[in-house]
Amino acid sequence: MMNDKNGTSAVGLIGLAVMGQNLVLNMHDKGYSVSVYNRTAETTRAFLTGPARNRTTVSGYETLEDFVSSLEHPRKIMLMVKAGPVVDIYIEKLVPLLSPGDIIIDGGNSRYSDTGRRVQELEKKQILFIGCGVSGGEEGARNGPSLMPGGNRKAWPFIKEILNNIAAETESGEKCCDWMGEGGAGHYVKMVHNGIEYGDMQLICEVYHVMKSGLQLSADELHRVFSSWNQTELKSYLIEITSRIFTLKEDDDTPLVEYILDTAGQKGTGTWTGISALEQGIPVSLIVEAVFARALSALKEERMEASKVLSGPKESFPGDKKEILEHVRKALLSAKIISYAQGFMLLRAAAAEYGWSLDFGSIALVWREGCIIRSVFLEKIKEAFTNNQDLPNLLLDGYFKKVLDEGNRSLRFVVAAAVQSGIPVPALSSALSFYDGYRCNRLPANLLQAQRDYFGAHTYERTDAPRGKFFHTDWTGEGGKTFSGTYNA
Amino acid sequence: MMNDKNGTSAVGLIGLAVMGQNLVLNMHDKGYSVSVYNRTAETTRAFLTGPARNRTTVSGYETLEDFVSSLEHPRKIMLMVKAGPVVDIYIEKLVPLLSPGDIIIDGGNSRYSDTGRRVQELEKKQILFIGCGVSGGEEGARNGPSLMPGGNRKAWPFIKEILNNIAAETESGEKCCDWMGEGGAGHYVKMVHNGIEYGDMQLICEVYHVMKSGLQLSADELHRVFSSWNQTELKSYLIEITSRIFTLKEDDDTPLVEYILDTAGQKGTGTWTGISALEQGIPVSLIVEAVFARALSALKEERMEASKVLSGPKESFPGDKKEILEHVRKALLSAKIISYAQGFMLLRAAAAEYGWSLDFGSIALVWREGCIIRSVFLEKIKEAFTNNQDLPNLLLDGYFKKVLDEGNRSLRFVVAAAVQSGIPVPALSSALSFYDGYRCNRLPANLLQAQRDYFGAHTYERTDAPRGKFFHTDWTGEGGKTFSGTYNA
Repeated sequence: MMNDKNGTSAVGLIGLAVMGQNLVLNMHDKGYSVSVYNRTAETTRAFLTGPARNRTTVSGYETLEDFVSSLEHPRKIMLMVKAGPVVDIYIEKLVPLLSPGDIIIDGGNSRYSDTGRRVQELEKKQILFIGCGVSGGEEGARNGPSLMPGGNRKAWPFIKEILNNIAAETESGEKCCDWMGEGGAGHYVKMVHNGIEYGDMQLICEVYHVMKSGLQLSADELHRVFSSWNQTELKSYLIEITSRIFTLKEDDDTPLVEYILDTAGQKGTGTWTGISALEQGIPVSLIVEAVFARALSALKEERMEASKVLSGPKESFPGDKKEILEHVRKALLSAKIISYAQGFMLLRAAAAEYGWSLDFGSIALVWREGCIIRSVFLEKIKEAFTNNQDLPNLLLDGYFKKVLDEGNRSLRFVVAAAVQSGIPVPALSSALSFYDGYRCNRLPANLLQAQRDYFGAHTYERTDAPRGKFFHTDWTGEGGKTFSGTYNA
Repeated sequence: MMNDKNGTSAVGLIGLAVMGQNLVLNMHDKGYSVSVYNRTAETTRAFLTGPARNRTTVSGYETLEDFVSSLEHPRKIMLMVKAGPVVDIYIEKLVPLLSPGDIIIDGGNSRYSDTGRRVQELEKKQILFIGCGVSGGEEGARNGPSLMPGGNRKAWPFIKEILNNIAAETESGEKCCDWMGEGGAGHYVKMVHNGIEYGDMQLICEVYHVMKSGLQLSADELHRVFSSWNQTELKSYLIEITSRIFTLKEDDDTPLVEYILDTAGQKGTGTWTGISALEQGIPVSLIVEAVFARALSALKEERMEASKVLSGPKESFPGDKKEILEHVRKALLSAKIISYAQGFMLLRAAAAEYGWSLDFGSIALVWREGCIIRSVFLEKIKEAFTNNQDLPNLLLDGYFKKVLDEGNRSLRFVVAAAVQSGIPVPALSSALSFYDGYRCNRLPANLLQAQRDYFGAHTYERTDAPRGKFFHTDWTGEGGKTFSGTYNA
C-alpha cells in the first residue's frame, strides 16, 4: 500500500487515465473507499499525491495481489483501460486472484461482442462480468456520467447502489443509470449512443455549413443562433458547447474555429454502429452518412485537388434570413428525431437478435443527463416509450409526428436549398429520404424484384397473393410466362 | 462412372445447380472434357440424360473418389456450391484425394476473408486454391460470364486458358477474365461488383419512382424512355431489362410490374461491401443507401401503417416533361459515375490494406461484358485507368469530369424536385452529397473537431500549422487556453 488506510475498500479501480481518476474522485465524494491500481506505479503515486490528496479512503497499490486483497467481498473491480486485448490481459491476471462471486466491471468502450464473450467465459469461472457503458467524457466521470451496465445479472444487486450514486441525475432526481440487459447489452447501448452522437454532431456541422456558406453568418451570429436554439426543443449539451465554441477568438480576432483543420478523427464506435445496422438489416442511414462524412473529411489533400477540378454552383440561400434560420432550426430538429428513430429501430432489432429485453424508455432516461447527447429532447423520447412500450417507431409517437408534420417542410426547404447551392448535406438528406421512404406505402422495390427475377430467377411476391407465395416469370419468353410456388430460390 | 468416356477429363465441377450445369455446358462447348459430381447422384443423372445429353466428353461420378481419379494432373476442380461452411466441407473431403499442385476453384459468392484463409490453409498442403468471382447469372454461366479469379497465383498458368475460353468477350475480342490478385482478391472484386449492382438497381428504381409519381408516366412510356436511354451512354444490361420489364402485361392489361410486391430481398454481398467500406473508412455511401433502401422496403407492414400517419407533400414535378426527362437521364448517369467512383475508391483502399496490386482498368474490362452491371460506360472507366494508372479518383478523369460539369446540374434539379415532391431518393441524394463534399476544400469538420476537443480533449490540427501537430484548447477557461503538442490523445 502506498498510503495509510484502515480496513478494506468498497470498490477497486484499475487504470488511472483522467477518466479513471475522475471516477475514483466521484466515488470518493459519494462516500466510497476506493483502492486503485495502475500499470505504472508512478501514475498511481502522482494521483494519490495530486488530485486525490487528503482523500484518506483512496488507497493505491503497487501489485495486483495487494490491490485485490484490499477489497471487501464480493470484490467489485472497475477496469478503465483501453478497449481490446488489454481488457483480456487484465482479466487473465485478475482471475487467479479472485474468489467466486467477485465482480469485474469493464467501463471502457469495448465492442459488445467481446463483452458477450467475456461474460460467458467468466461465468464458467464463477466471476461475474459486467460491461458498462460510461458516457460524459472526463467531466461526466467526475460529476456524474451516464451509465449503461449489462452482462451477468447476478452482479447487479451488488453494484446497483454505487453505480446509481456516481451517475448523473435528472432535475427530478432520477438516476441516469439502469440495468440494460444480459451479455453485451450495456456496451451495445453505449455503442448506439456513440453512433447517435456521430449523427448529432454531423447534423450540427451541416447546419453550420449551411448558415456560414448559404447565409454568410459570422461567428458572432452563429454563437447567437446556437444560443437561441438552446432555449428551444433543441436544448442540449452539444448545442450549448457549439454556441460557446464560436466565442473563442485568436489574438488577431479571428474565430479559433476558423483555424481548426477540417479533418475529423474517429474512434471505432460509429463504425461499429454502422456495421451492426448492416448486419441487422436496419436502415440507420444517418449515422452511417455521419461516419462517411468524417471519412471524407479526412481526405483533405484529395478534396483540395478536386475542388480545383470539379464544378458546381456557389449560391446563397434565397429569401428572408430570419425565416430561413427558423427553417434551419426545424430541419435540424426533424433530422435529429429521424436519427433517433433509426437508432431505436436498431436497438429493437438487436434486442430481438440477442435476446435482450431492452427498456427503451429507460435508455432514453439514462441518456437524459451526464452523457454527450444529453438533451431535453430525450425526455420526450422517454415519454413516448413510457406512453407506449410497444411503440413500433418513434416517428409514430404523437408528439414527434406533430413536430415532423411541420418540420418535414423545413427539412425539405433546407435540403433543396443546399442541393441547389452546392453545400453537401449528407445527413440531412438521408434523414429526409428515410422519412419519405418510411411513409411510402409503395416503394419502387417492385421494379427491383422484377430485375432480380429477370436476371437471377430470384422470384417475387405479388400484391394480389398471400405473403410467402413466390412467383417466377420467364421474362424473355413470349408474353412472359409466370410460374408460382412457395419456394424462394 | 455413370456414362462411357475414354481417358481423363480436363476439368471437374462439383455442384450441379443451374449455374454449375451451365458452366459445364459452356466448358464442353469450348472443347473441354468435364467430370461432374453432385451431392445427390440423381441430379447428376438428370443432368447427363437431360441438358448434357449426347455430350460424350461430359462424365458423371457417384463418388468423390472416382470423380477425382477421372481428372488429369494437375487436377482442376471447380466448386459451384453454396458459399459458407459447405465450401469448407468439400475442401476437407477433397484434400485427402488430391496430389500436390492440384487446384480447387471456388466459383461461389464466398466472403473474401474466407477465401484468403482457405488459400493460406491449402497452400500449406500444397493445394492451390482459387476464389473466382463469377457474374452473369445463369445466362452468363452458359454463354460467357465475367470471371474474377484470385488466390494462389501458382495456379493461374494452369487455369488461365480454360477460364479465358469460357468467359464473355468484348466486341473487340478482349476476354472478360483476368487475374485479380492474391488471397481473397477475386472474391473481393466480385463483392464490390455486387455492391455496385445494388447501387445501379437502386438508382434505376429511384428514377422509375420519380418518373412514375412525379411525371405520371405509364408503363408504356417508361418502356420507351428506358429503351431510348439504352441508345445513350447509359446503354447497359440493367437498363435494357428494365425497359423490357415494362412490356409485360397481365391478362387484365395491367403491367405485371404493378402486381409485384415492393419488398426487395437481398443476399450478403451488398451488406459485405458496406461493412468493408466502414472498416476501410471509405465513404461508399451510395451502395450503403441502396442496401438500406432494400431493408426499408422489407418493412412493408410498418410502412403501410406509417403512410397513414406521417405527412408530406404529394406534388408533381414542375416544368416541361421532355426537359425534365433529360434531367432525369443525366441525373442517373451522374449518380452512376459517382457510385462507381466510390466503388473504385474502396478497391484502391482494399488493395493497399491487403497488399493486392489490383489493376483497375482490367477490372473495368472484366465487368464490360458477361456480368449484370455490363455496360458501355465501363469502357470509359477502362479508358480512364488506361490513360492514368494512378488516377486518384474516377471523378477527376477528363471524360467523367466533363459529364459531371453538366450532369451535376441535372442531379441537383432531380434531387431538389424529388425532395419537394415527397419522393424518397436516398441513392441520388447521397451521390450528390458525396460530389459536393468531395469537391469541397473546406468542410465543416473543423467545428466537429472543436466539439471533440471540447468534450473529450481529442485535440485538433490547425490550418496554420504543419500536419501532425496537435492542439488542445481549454474551451471553458477564460478566453480559451490553447496547448500544442505532437501527441494525439
